[in-house]
Amino acid sequence: MSGIEALDILAEQFARLPGIGRKSAERLAFAVLEYSPEDIAKFTRAMSEAKAKIHRCPVCQNLTDRDICPICTDQNRDKSQICVVEDARAVMAMEKVRTYQGTYHVLHGLISPMSGITPDALTLRELLARLEDETVKEVIVATGATTEGEATAMYLSRLLRPLGLRVTRLAHGIPFGGALEYADEITLSRALEGRRDFD
Amino acid sequence: MSGIEALDILAEQFARLPGIGRKSAERLAFAVLEYSPEDIAKFTRAMSEAKAKIHRCPVCQNLTDRDICPICTDQNRDKSQICVVEDARAVMAMEKVRTYQGTYHVLHGLISPMSGITPDALTLRELLARLEDETVKEVIVATGATTEGEATAMYLSRLLRPLGLRVTRLAHGIPFGGALEYADEITLSRALEGRRDFD
Repeated sequence: MSGIEALDILAEQFARLPGIGRKSAERLAFAVLEYSPEDIAKFTRAMSEAKAKIHRCPVCQNLTDRDICPICTDQNRDKSQICVVEDARAVMAMEKVRTYQGTYHVLHGLISPMSGITPDALTLRELLARLEDETVKEVIVATGATTEGEATAMYLSRLLRPLGLRVTRLAHGIPFGGALEYADEITLSRALEGRRDFD
Repeated sequence: MSGIEALDILAEQFARLPGIGRKSAERLAFAVLEYSPEDIAKFTRAMSEAKAKIHRCPVCQNLTDRDICPICTDQNRDKSQICVVEDARAVMAMEKVRTYQGTYHVLHGLISPMSGITPDALTLRELLARLEDETVKEVIVATGATTEGEATAMYLSRLLRPLGLRVTRLAHGIPFGGALEYADEITLSRALEGRRDFD
């Protein structure tokens, strides 16, 4: 609390962001005060425009600024494979593995009984709709090696295997407890190569 | 780089902030995308309003949203003492030491030949103007115990002692290399009590 209302309000906004504590939020608020009015306008415009322009791809649910995302519209991507991931950052991480040429499905979350996140909160309806025609032959479950990631993988396996398609998951190789976006490219590439069927 | 232009632009803005690396900036940009449009508007408004409302107090140069800051207008503060600090965060830190009842002067920087910050860049002209009448009896130099803090303290001592007022500095007690705003209240309180004359 600086005693300056407008500054405290700004610091509160920074403190709402994930991983930003009170001290850091204050530091960031003070830093923004040093900006020129033009730089403030750039920042606020970047925020508003990102929100206005970016939405979910109606096919894969990944974030995009186009009607349908570039991966879903790419004729060279293998539509018979869908890699299911937690969020858009996981897609970015997978895309660094240049050997993967399939498509994605973004769940926008993981099942977490502790946080009250049930399967209904994920984009499973949209995933099941994509599996209705015969195009898709394999679903690669690429959730992280966390408790929630594993729980979601098991749920997906039980949901999808009765549909008669191949359901695989990334090979172990991702360090336990690691979030997907912090894995290096080689680890991710090996995990992809060594993927195996749910047994 | 997400491949989504509006998202990359927003991540760049976060990456400009002090202490925020590329990975963190991306994480923050994604977090903001999850906000409701109302919450985005709250954040951008907080930023614009903080910038519009907050300026330097014409007396002590501390940040304030009033014409003159509450400390300078407070009749109970001892106008015979001026505590000279690097920035507004240092004032906040000092204000937690409830035993200090004097006023402040905010330099908005420290002398740093390495970064090309010379005494001209600080608010020394404004400080000297405050010393012209006979009200001020003591200047307490409260810059941090860093190389730049010490250099600024020595410069101030040489500048102010010829004026015939008491020039003191905070007692050692602040850990070497420590920035003022991270010192705990007891350390700051003791440093204030044990302040001594430049010799």
